[in-house]
Order: sequence, then C-alpha cells, then structure tokens
Amino acid sequence: MPREIERKFLLKSDAWRGRVTGVTYRQGYLSTVPERTVRVRIAGDHAYLTVKGITTRHSRSEFEYPVPVADAEQMLALCEGPLVEKARYEIPHAGKTWQVDEYHGDNRGLILAEIELTSEDEKFELPEWIGDEVSGDARYYNSNLARNPFAAWAHS
Amino acid sequence: MPREIERKFLLKSDAWRGRVTGVTYRQGYLSTVPERTVRVRIAGDHAYLTVKGITTRHSRSEFEYPVPVADAEQMLALCEGPLVEKARYEIPHAGKTWQVDEYHGDNRGLILAEIELTSEDEKFELPEWIGDEVSGDARYYNSNLARNPFAAWAHS
Repeated sequence: MPREIERKFLLKSDAWRGRVTGVTYRQGYLSTVPERTVRVRIAGDHAYLTVKGITTRHSRSEFEYPVPVADAEQMLALCEGPLVEKARYEIPHAGKTWQVDEYHGDNRGLILAEIELTSEDEKFELPEWIGDEVSGDARYYNSNLARNPFAAWAHS
Repeated sequence: MPREIERKFLLKSDAWRGRVTGVTYRQGYLSTVPERTVRVRIAGDHAYLTVKGITTRHSRSEFEYPVPVADAEQMLALCEGPLVEKARYEIPHAGKTWQVDEYHGDNRGLILAEIELTSEDEKFELPEWIGDEVSGDARYYNSNLARNPFAAWAHS
C-alpha cells in the first residue's frame, strides 16, 4: 500500500524565507472523516484528487491522482467550505526537502513545516528555524484547518 | 460541468434475462454525504474513483477517473462497510442502453434498471419489463444501499 510518512513542525524564525518562490495551493475536502479523507487540491497549474486513510504513528495510506484543473475547480465548489489556502515553499536542507506552508485566509498567521520520510524511523537533521513538533496534534491537520481554522483558535 | 442525467426503475418481469452476460461490480463510499459522494468502484477488471454532487431533478455533476484496480482494492478497505455488490447487465432497447443491476450480498433481491439520458427532457421508450420509477426515492441510491441495505428494509 502506498504510504505517506511525514512529520510536522511549527517554525521559530523566518530564516527559511527568501530562498525559493512559493506555489499557491487551494484545497478543500469531500470527506474530513479521519479514516477516509478525500482532498481536492489545485497546486499552481496542476490539480489532484487524493484519498488518505487514518494516521497511525507518523504514516497513513495515500492514493493521489492528477485531475484536470477545470474539474478540480468544480469539485472545490462541492467541498464543505471554507477552503484551505496557502503558499508552499520547498526548502532543501541536509539532503531532504522541507515543505513550508504559509497559510492564507482563515488560517492566516499559521506557518507549518513538513518533512516526508521513507520510513518511520528515518533520521533527519532539523534546520535551525524549526520549532516544536506538532505531528500528533490533530488541530494542525489540513482537513481540520478547513473546518476549524487557525483564526478561530483561542490564542492563549 | 460534466453532468449525469439518469432515471431509475424497478422491474416487473425477468424478460430482460438471458440476453447478455453480467459484469461484477463491487463498490464502496468514501463519502455518502449527498452534496459530495465519493465512490470507489471495481467493475470487472477496471476500477474508478467517482465524485458526484447532489441530485437536482434527474441530474447531478459527476467526475470519474480510472484508477489501478490494486489501489481501488485498498481504497475499498477504507470505505465504511458494507460494500455494495451487484452484477450489471447492459440491455439495448430502442436505441438506448438500459443498465440492469442485480444486487448481491445485503441487497440481494433488489434489481434496478437505469437509463442514462443526454438531457432531462429526452424521450425514451420503456421496455415491457420495466416497472415503477424510483428516480426520486433516496432509498435506492447506491450510497444509501451501502448504509441501509435492501435486506434491512421492512417489506410490507
């Protein structure tokens, strides 16, 4: 089974900025049920329909298919709103690629960094701008950011 | 927007039988929400991932993508059970093709015939084995047959 293994972190500085150009992502969910999420994503001028299973430890099954952007636009209109909008920056570091997502819209103010691994136990080096790990925190799942955006959290 | 326009009927006789061989369909749902159903279907040796919007009158938006059968097998395992299983027979009649679905498993005993139209007002001829129309009856939606199968209905 294709599996996605990833870890997710907050950022503690802006030192990652200025190296690469971001790509605009717009995505919505046809299902936010954790056992079977279905995501529609437009990433720049490409689009994808993605099915994911439940997360166990740091991994989950993932099935992703490219779809026409025009289809994706119409499927986004079927999604339960609001959409999740962000710019994604791909930052190379120590042989791995970090994906830094700077959220817009109702999640403005939130920036997350993710790294995709080839095994759950893979060792990797943290850039100095990486902060606390939030891999296990469901609030940061994009499927939950659609329903309960960052702007609605109590920031205490 | 790609739209699916179809009408659905019960059958009043077995006169359709014996003309063609059926193809085995197994399908499950990643979302049964009427505004955004997501279906995984294995039809013979092909498989599809299909997104549909809500039904208005006899039509709904539909986006269908072929996927590898091995992926579909794994996505069926993510679906909320039980699966819908049926044999589909394609019966030509008066220039149109009728799809007769003979259900198995928890929907055994149910047989439905569908015709796909090119417009909501298209005229078509009913074969003599066609019974009452059930197009508007949500119990007969395949997404509902997964959750509330025919065997569980009170047959009064």
